[in-house]
Amino acid sequence: MLDKKQFKTARLKALTYFDKASIVLTEEEKNSIEIADFGLSDLYKIGLEVLVYVNTKKVCAKELVMFPGQTCPEHIHLTKNGRSGKEETFRCRWGKVYLYVPGEKNCKPKLDGLENYKEHLKVPHEIVLNPGEQYTLMPDTWHWFRAGDEGAVVSEFSTTSTDNQDIFSDPRINRFTKIQE
Amino acid sequence: MLDKKQFKTARLKALTYFDKASIVLTEEEKNSIEIADFGLSDLYKIGLEVLVYVNTKKVCAKELVMFPGQTCPEHIHLTKNGRSGKEETFRCRWGKVYLYVPGEKNCKPKLDGLENYKEHLKVPHEIVLNPGEQYTLMPDTWHWFRAGDEGAVVSEFSTTSTDNQDIFSDPRINRFTKIQE
Repeated sequence: MLDKKQFKTARLKALTYFDKASIVLTEEEKNSIEIADFGLSDLYKIGLEVLVYVNTKKVCAKELVMFPGQTCPEHIHLTKNGRSGKEETFRCRWGKVYLYVPGEKNCKPKLDGLENYKEHLKVPHEIVLNPGEQYTLMPDTWHWFRAGDEGAVVSEFSTTSTDNQDIFSDPRINRFTKIQE
Repeated sequence: MLDKKQFKTARLKALTYFDKASIVLTEEEKNSIEIADFGLSDLYKIGLEVLVYVNTKKVCAKELVMFPGQTCPEHIHLTKNGRSGKEETFRCRWGKVYLYVPGEKNCKPKLDGLENYKEHLKVPHEIVLNPGEQYTLMPDTWHWFRAGDEGAVVSEFSTTSTDNQDIFSDPRINRFTKIQE
């Protein structure tokens, strides 16, 4: 849960990252940036700022802003009822992002500040994305990602986004953030 | 057809537009930018510079560079043999782009320098895209687009790209550029 002030502060802060990445938004888009705390009320540790450019029956494109050290928790886009899960490409535009996927453990991820969450961050193979670098995830792949110390701006190119179908490792998570009136 | 020098010059010029738009590329990407003259050997009038970020069986993302006044000729992504044509969203990142689609004629498009091509630029409804503005085209829609006087950088988010299936209004066009050895 976020109160209105926290929500507004985070949205303004997200805009500064679009500026850093020289990404131009319309006024309408600026007012539609989603601030996701995943129901954990600890936004600057577990959270994500999301602008959906387009989401049709086939294609989705988003821009993700991550504050310094912010983590998007482990989740999966499952194939269900014959409908393929989301396939997605993450392309780092600014800053640095550490993406974790199944595979060989090749690092000791930096987990400071994540004591309450790290047991749910399980997939161990680290892929480091600097600006201009990208990685494509096929459906049904567990993944989580964390911004570097400066934060990050990441483009996501994918099939249709159905956020309400995402499955998270941490059972406490609710994908949709409550804004306290 | 382009000779090697023309090709190299155009690729270097395209890179300057990525810089203007503050879009970071890897060295490998810089060396994979497609210079398309559509077989008309008149690149700065009819042409397009294309960097494909990803093109899977479902999703494609590209960055398009257009030099000042450069035109991407009228074409369509047709549904064929039960396979839906390409659906695509154009998002202007830098500069200005004039996109033309079927509909009411709402402008007198600027066609200077296009005397040899304008009879094949038929769809008349103009949509002006400034940075941060975008437009989604469904499959089976004729369209063409032209950069403004400064040029343009445009992101394209789409279903799978099968450029060899594109149909052009101008029968002289060949989608694939010959580079003279």
